[in-house]
Amino acid sequence: MRLFHVVFLSTVCLASLMPPAFAQTQTSSHTSILGFAGSSVAHEIEVENKFKAIPSPDEERRQHRIFTAEPHVAGSARNNELARYIADQWRNEGLEDVVIRRYDVYGSNPISTSLEMVAPVRYRATLREMPIPGDLDSKNKSISSAWSGMSASGEVTSPLVYAHSGNPEDYEYLRKQGIDVKGKVVLVRYSNPYSYRGFKALTAQREGAAAILIYSDPAEDGYKKGKVDPNGPWGPEYHIQRGAITYDFMVPGDPLTPGWASVPGAKRISPNEAVSIPKIMALPLSWHDAKPLLANMDGPLAPADWQGGLPIKYHLGGNRVRVHVKIEMDDSTQPYYVVEGRIRGAQLPDEWIVLGNHRDAWVFGGVDPSSGTASMMELTRALGKLAKEGVRPRRTIVVCSWDGEEVGLTGSTEWGEQFANELRERAVAYINVDEATSGSDFHGQAVASLAPMLVETTHSLQDPSGRSLYEAWKASAARESSETRSGSVTDSNLADTRIGSGSDHTVFLNFIGMPVLGLGFEGPYGVYHSAYDDFFWVNHFGDPGYRYHTLMSQLWGVLALRLANADLFPFDFASYAANIRQFVNEMSRGKDMSQLDLKPVLDAVDGFEAAGTRLNESMSRTLKAGVLNPELAETVNHGTMQVERNWLNPDGIPGRPWFKHILYGARFTYAHLELPGLTEAVEKQDWPTAKQQAEILRQALDNNTKLLNELSAALKGEKGEPQ
Amino acid sequence: MRLFHVVFLSTVCLASLMPPAFAQTQTSSHTSILGFAGSSVAHEIEVENKFKAIPSPDEERRQHRIFTAEPHVAGSARNNELARYIADQWRNEGLEDVVIRRYDVYGSNPISTSLEMVAPVRYRATLREMPIPGDLDSKNKSISSAWSGMSASGEVTSPLVYAHSGNPEDYEYLRKQGIDVKGKVVLVRYSNPYSYRGFKALTAQREGAAAILIYSDPAEDGYKKGKVDPNGPWGPEYHIQRGAITYDFMVPGDPLTPGWASVPGAKRISPNEAVSIPKIMALPLSWHDAKPLLANMDGPLAPADWQGGLPIKYHLGGNRVRVHVKIEMDDSTQPYYVVEGRIRGAQLPDEWIVLGNHRDAWVFGGVDPSSGTASMMELTRALGKLAKEGVRPRRTIVVCSWDGEEVGLTGSTEWGEQFANELRERAVAYINVDEATSGSDFHGQAVASLAPMLVETTHSLQDPSGRSLYEAWKASAARESSETRSGSVTDSNLADTRIGSGSDHTVFLNFIGMPVLGLGFEGPYGVYHSAYDDFFWVNHFGDPGYRYHTLMSQLWGVLALRLANADLFPFDFASYAANIRQFVNEMSRGKDMSQLDLKPVLDAVDGFEAAGTRLNESMSRTLKAGVLNPELAETVNHGTMQVERNWLNPDGIPGRPWFKHILYGARFTYAHLELPGLTEAVEKQDWPTAKQQAEILRQALDNNTKLLNELSAALKGEKGEPQ
Repeated sequence: MRLFHVVFLSTVCLASLMPPAFAQTQTSSHTSILGFAGSSVAHEIEVENKFKAIPSPDEERRQHRIFTAEPHVAGSARNNELARYIADQWRNEGLEDVVIRRYDVYGSNPISTSLEMVAPVRYRATLREMPIPGDLDSKNKSISSAWSGMSASGEVTSPLVYAHSGNPEDYEYLRKQGIDVKGKVVLVRYSNPYSYRGFKALTAQREGAAAILIYSDPAEDGYKKGKVDPNGPWGPEYHIQRGAITYDFMVPGDPLTPGWASVPGAKRISPNEAVSIPKIMALPLSWHDAKPLLANMDGPLAPADWQGGLPIKYHLGGNRVRVHVKIEMDDSTQPYYVVEGRIRGAQLPDEWIVLGNHRDAWVFGGVDPSSGTASMMELTRALGKLAKEGVRPRRTIVVCSWDGEEVGLTGSTEWGEQFANELRERAVAYINVDEATSGSDFHGQAVASLAPMLVETTHSLQDPSGRSLYEAWKASAARESSETRSGSVTDSNLADTRIGSGSDHTVFLNFIGMPVLGLGFEGPYGVYHSAYDDFFWVNHFGDPGYRYHTLMSQLWGVLALRLANADLFPFDFASYAANIRQFVNEMSRGKDMSQLDLKPVLDAVDGFEAAGTRLNESMSRTLKAGVLNPELAETVNHGTMQVERNWLNPDGIPGRPWFKHILYGARFTYAHLELPGLTEAVEKQDWPTAKQQAEILRQALDNNTKLLNELSAALKGEKGEPQ
Repeated sequence: MRLFHVVFLSTVCLASLMPPAFAQTQTSSHTSILGFAGSSVAHEIEVENKFKAIPSPDEERRQHRIFTAEPHVAGSARNNELARYIADQWRNEGLEDVVIRRYDVYGSNPISTSLEMVAPVRYRATLREMPIPGDLDSKNKSISSAWSGMSASGEVTSPLVYAHSGNPEDYEYLRKQGIDVKGKVVLVRYSNPYSYRGFKALTAQREGAAAILIYSDPAEDGYKKGKVDPNGPWGPEYHIQRGAITYDFMVPGDPLTPGWASVPGAKRISPNEAVSIPKIMALPLSWHDAKPLLANMDGPLAPADWQGGLPIKYHLGGNRVRVHVKIEMDDSTQPYYVVEGRIRGAQLPDEWIVLGNHRDAWVFGGVDPSSGTASMMELTRALGKLAKEGVRPRRTIVVCSWDGEEVGLTGSTEWGEQFANELRERAVAYINVDEATSGSDFHGQAVASLAPMLVETTHSLQDPSGRSLYEAWKASAARESSETRSGSVTDSNLADTRIGSGSDHTVFLNFIGMPVLGLGFEGPYGVYHSAYDDFFWVNHFGDPGYRYHTLMSQLWGVLALRLANADLFPFDFASYAANIRQFVNEMSRGKDMSQLDLKPVLDAVDGFEAAGTRLNESMSRTLKAGVLNPELAETVNHGTMQVERNWLNPDGIPGRPWFKHILYGARFTYAHLELPGLTEAVEKQDWPTAKQQAEILRQALDNNTKLLNELSAALKGEKGEPQ
């Protein structure tokens, strides 16, 4: 699963807020590495260089071909075969404790889908993607027709309404035009602005619509953007963006086991009680199938910004065009399979760095997710090779191939729920790679405490353009920033610290309280979730030389190695504090804010920042001094591991108990949502809840301040109390 | 690995000491089951009946053939192939989380072994086992020659001394006869009385011998006992009892990772520091190869009880017979593989019943261990079938196929060391089956708290003789008891509660503090650890109809299911107390016992017994009342799980820190040793240590008394304090 990354772009400039310790490091990446004692740096660089020399473009391409050879949707025989393939490969490569974990989940597979315009003229939608010249895979007989994961089953014949992007304000506009959608079928487009299709479905369901049709307008990802496949990267006439409409913004994973693992035999709630199962029929359409519907509509002319890229006048409809929608889904329980392996740490095997990528694809998954899967396979080959040579990380690196990410982040959620206790005790961080490579622009996400180490690491990698990855990243970020007029790019806002949902990091960040990182190379990508997202597309547009795939394996692995080998974890809590202050300030720009006294929170942020700065200095001094007492290192590391857990509120955010992180959340649209409980309360002007959420935030800040001060004291050889 | 069980036979009559609750249950096994609420019994019986109906003799035989088709010593390609076979079978059968865990251990494999008598005549020992008529497997070219696991490498030409059974008193006798073994080669027999061959090796090493030859005298397991293979179950002329001489009574498992897991990349000590690696050469011999040596010996005539079953006069030697021994071992690191799978519990997945059997065999392993492996495969097939039908245990059943048991209990020890924390938190009990079936006499071992539930369970199983297994067990125990004149057999001494070492239960009991059970059907078995312990032998003598194999699968599974499904764990601590009192009384029969005041310990035993009786009554009342509050059940069960852990002393027993259990230990001979730290101190007349050990015992008893009283109070709805 993947989001158009533009909604994640941070528009914040934090440069002036960064602590000096961080700024220093960036200029001396060859002689120091965040978290490493002076005496450890040379060895770490040697290990990283050995590691980076292993992944090769040929091998990336070979693996990519294996994963893109056939459609492999979650639950399919081919996807399960690929699970066994990965397990076998990992065992041969030398990974340890390779195991295929099974989760029995609520299935959602199409038995039949059909759409027909019955008035004013008959048109039976093809719901298919026609082969395109040169791409043999596009002729594959196993390509599915159009369907939406988690659609309800049913049948309706009803007028069709054009509801623009299907967001609440669109229905507001329709209402003002006297158009009611109750019992009708709504036709919406995917973007403009982007929102998660599940949010569109929920909105339509709330409005009382009988079904929702979601199509790809050429203005968004087709010929209005540029050349279309096979002549360019954009989506051709017949491309269908499949996808699930699961209400996983309420609770992800198997809808019938909310908050616990759907291991075989687990207790299940009934589908009626499951808040994440939509009650509305949904179907995705190519513009080829949407055009006859739009062209025949009556009703008022749609406003200018509702007009799309097709050479017709878009009307609001609601009367003349009637459609017959019939959808039959198989919702029987089916197994999903997560493959898990590890390179066991030589010295601290019970501290885990977790890496993951999903395996299931809507069709071939050229970019999403098989570019990431290929990069993962080269990463594991390289780690296994080093381990066989006796070069083993200090801590354990756990690698997982998720299943059912496309359906509801299902495999990672169930795995995380199953091992929540172990992970809260042992996990250092989770590094997610979903779509590794649709182009050459790096996009790196991290919780704010790991942003500095992410930026630092990119200095050590070579971009195919000849520059360091850091330079290339900064250049593409500056270009994007000037396009979106979002201010200057600096080391401190280069990494995206705004983390929403939509991929497998969700359970780790929001349910378990693990620091997360997310990595991807991006470019123009109009074939997302269609059958055209395949081997051909990647070889012609996404990454013809597989050089970015190779770079991804290197980057992912070096980040994992740094976390696995560090003397002291490279968390920067002064950076975290600066981000939190920014989040609070943004949130406080709402109206009627005089109702809420934010001074205690802002004071607590100041305290946390001071503690973070002090800890940065203590750590830096200790690391420079050279030899580190292992017991002291353990105390400090177990302490800093705890900080992210302390951002969890066991009760969750109001109305969504599964989402426990008080700094990071996501809107129903999947967009990032900082301080979710507090922000939503403020937006609703629910001041009692806002006060309570602010108090929870203040307490968490104070707890972490106390913890950091204890760690600083321990580093100074003192006991416990703040200085 | 296996011991002649006779050394384990309990000679204790505890009938008069048993609490009434236990005695009652035995007469009403159809309407009540220890640990089950009245309302749960019918369902449990239904599940057990379904389970018992699945294992079949044909399938047991089919599996047994697969495991006995080729030699499969630890570390061999065939044994590793069998690990993969088991993993594949389990995955197909529906077990979850099947994983092959790898341990890199100090290897011990023969490159070459040779023995030649160089004076007074030349005789080159065959060191081979000749084929026998009718047994095609005995012609297998892959059968190894004679070798001892963990023998030192070296070469010596020296006089040969006959040292009887190679125990310390035997060398004492030789010394009195003026015979010194320093620098010489000693020839000893396996039994008379039995002691573990590693203890013989250590004794010879301490005496300064250059090498030890250990042979099978026909008086012990050959023609003096009865008809030999292929005409009977006893060992033929050429049979060689292979085996390891590892000093695993000091610390089991990989010698280079004492106390931690030898996962790939783990830190290792040097072989010189490893206390469990012998420094002496060793070789096992058939009587065919021993006879020419014995026949040519000079020196004094050996005493009457040193004379054996060969038609010669046994002399002490030391002069005329000179032998050349040359042994070259490969001690390079090699991987061992433990296969792990589970049926995940439907309600309490984090409470584990662990079952295990070793896979590695000296040659074919007809009885040892493949009879157990076949029974395990039928057990897992049955559990998997039930799970597929939705009949799943409440708790998780973990099943493991161990590796390298024959070398030093290696696989189970490494696995136990790796997961010690998890097991201490989650494990309810471990049920070991090593040699499942060499005959029809049941031998059941259990820590004293589980003895009552073991005895009760045998009422529910049908012995092939037509009686219940309970009746058959009691009859064979009574026969054996009358042969050994060890007193009458009652329900309370039927189960063997004296647990030494020599199989895979060791790490769980002695290092982790888990209650253990051990199961086996026994009979005349003279081919132990020889190539003749094979499919042919089992089909002609051990269990021709595979009915005892089938019964073993049923019994093993029903025990696991009772522990997995019980409302309250069926621990009987009054039974434990009665056993401990017996242990203390036996220990106190030594000399000079006035030096040690045992009254505080005996008072503490009384207190523990009273608390155990009270808890038995409270549990019984609660279970009869019917509906059980799940939180209360969890409190009580987590409490009673803790009792066995509380018998651990983190410092271990004096001189052997790995062995932490203060009630159960083993002598260097592998024989059971109750109250090991205290008993050894008393035997050495080391009164300061004895006082300290007695105090440790008293404290552990008091802690458990307090715990049991708290649980009784909780069951009565009160808080905490003893009544």
